[in-house]
Amino acid sequence: MAQSPTKDIAFITEPIREGLERVNQHLVGVAGAARLSGDAAMLQHAVVSGGKKLRPALTLLAGSFHPGYEDALVTMGAAVELLHIATLIHDDTVDKADTRRGRATVGNLWGPDVAVLVGDYVFATSATFVCDTGNIRVVRRFSETIMELAQGELAERFAAHNWEQTIDDYNARIYDKTATLFCTAAESGGVLSHAPESETQALYQYGYNLGMAFQVMDDVLDLAGTEEELGKPVGNDLLQGTLTLPVLRFAERYPHEPVLVRVRQGSREPADLAALVAAVRDSDAIGEAFAVMEGYRDQALAALHRLPATRERASLEALVAYATDRRV
Amino acid sequence: MAQSPTKDIAFITEPIREGLERVNQHLVGVAGAARLSGDAAMLQHAVVSGGKKLRPALTLLAGSFHPGYEDALVTMGAAVELLHIATLIHDDTVDKADTRRGRATVGNLWGPDVAVLVGDYVFATSATFVCDTGNIRVVRRFSETIMELAQGELAERFAAHNWEQTIDDYNARIYDKTATLFCTAAESGGVLSHAPESETQALYQYGYNLGMAFQVMDDVLDLAGTEEELGKPVGNDLLQGTLTLPVLRFAERYPHEPVLVRVRQGSREPADLAALVAAVRDSDAIGEAFAVMEGYRDQALAALHRLPATRERASLEALVAYATDRRV
Repeated sequence: MAQSPTKDIAFITEPIREGLERVNQHLVGVAGAARLSGDAAMLQHAVVSGGKKLRPALTLLAGSFHPGYEDALVTMGAAVELLHIATLIHDDTVDKADTRRGRATVGNLWGPDVAVLVGDYVFATSATFVCDTGNIRVVRRFSETIMELAQGELAERFAAHNWEQTIDDYNARIYDKTATLFCTAAESGGVLSHAPESETQALYQYGYNLGMAFQVMDDVLDLAGTEEELGKPVGNDLLQGTLTLPVLRFAERYPHEPVLVRVRQGSREPADLAALVAAVRDSDAIGEAFAVMEGYRDQALAALHRLPATRERASLEALVAYATDRRV
Repeated sequence: MAQSPTKDIAFITEPIREGLERVNQHLVGVAGAARLSGDAAMLQHAVVSGGKKLRPALTLLAGSFHPGYEDALVTMGAAVELLHIATLIHDDTVDKADTRRGRATVGNLWGPDVAVLVGDYVFATSATFVCDTGNIRVVRRFSETIMELAQGELAERFAAHNWEQTIDDYNARIYDKTATLFCTAAESGGVLSHAPESETQALYQYGYNLGMAFQVMDDVLDLAGTEEELGKPVGNDLLQGTLTLPVLRFAERYPHEPVLVRVRQGSREPADLAALVAAVRDSDAIGEAFAVMEGYRDQALAALHRLPATRERASLEALVAYATDRRV
């Protein structure tokens, strides 16, 4: 069954098409279950989006090695997607974003106050879905994940413009912000399909490294992409004060670079920030951050080798390529 | 052990003093566990307040009829208090409140964005505490409760100034907003102490009726109290557009009252609103709403008679008096 990895999303989801369709039906049902018609319209808008559903795909694929537990996996897949959606609703509210994936955000349409409460409702709905799996280990891990997501967002805000932070701080933050949900999506597939613990641990390692690779790649592209590819200014994170791996590596290697010194001393001059973006972009810090991403990527693939070589495993391999080969 | 009910909080909490102290220690621990020092200060402020802790008291007392499960009850007590605190953080954020119980709100001190994320973190922390009980029934019910709390807040906002709403709508809303958490606090005491199902159901009925009585009393006092007692304008709910039981009863009975007609037609003139508050306040709608409260109160007390007549049961009786005899 050895197939060369592809980053084609259709190839990835082909073996779990039916499961993903059932996840979608759950999401549609969430909007239908709301008591008020006004709520239903909002939830419909918030929950039934055209997202790629990478996280539920991860759960379904991770749970495929020991068949017979599809119902629990579909329920869990809906839970992880709902948690992801709830996080996006609150993030967009906090960031005052007007659009997401080309559609108006809940906060844009109904105001930030409603968006806070709709986000809460979707968070809670995700938790009831997890409870429906009946598995206390999965429920516990899910709750921790919600804590970590909130902690990651808080940490990002508090670390903004803070040049005292270390690469360890960065690693802890991107685990909280991104990797924890990939871990939980993958690990729960193992737990709910009653996989041997060694396989579940392999799935956890896969999810961890996939999530870390995904976020580091995002942070590299933010500096290495073009404005056209990114759909936002190059170095947008740095312009917002978010210090990512390439920037922190640059600061470690070239602490006396004049424009870096000015920005560290508090300059928010557009010309200084643009010059710093350009300096990082042209430095070897980009390549070094890319190498860190490759390390995570390779560990994700290595973890898969501890699992049976099925068609679904080929999908999980392709998912790594999909998450890390992308130009944007 | 038959004691006459008292509304003295010291009498209520006397048999569970040690348990409440342990709940407090859990709350202090939440702030200590946060990864960032900035978070810890916020969480300390948000979580370790001087609140009366009625809800954990309810769980501890409800779980007292079958001793031996104190650890799980303390954990659950911390969970219900954290959930209550998370709700207040988001409510205060949405309402742009500057103070709560005489202290600055999280949103006031650190801004609304941080308050959204801190609220999320406390929500998630409450869920991990529930998971620590290891009881999936309690966890499931807790998740539903979070959904209902969010739904109640959303419903209140969407029903503001809406005179088409019915008393059934009001009842559904105050269940979601207030009674559900009292239900869950009481029921979980039964479940976690392995009480017979008939006792757990009695505790659920007690919690439901206590919660409904508590909220109806709040809504009566909002109109029947004095500004001095209330610490806010008389009829503040109506001034904000929230239609409560006395107002809805008044509208049912006196649909042609001129000032009511003007407000229903959309008048927000301060003079009209003040006149409507005065008209409701002087009408028999207040007494009728009070009678509804008494009905809930009596059912709460009746539910207790299905439980053994212990000292803790006397506390639960006193809690009813405490929640419903208060002037404000």
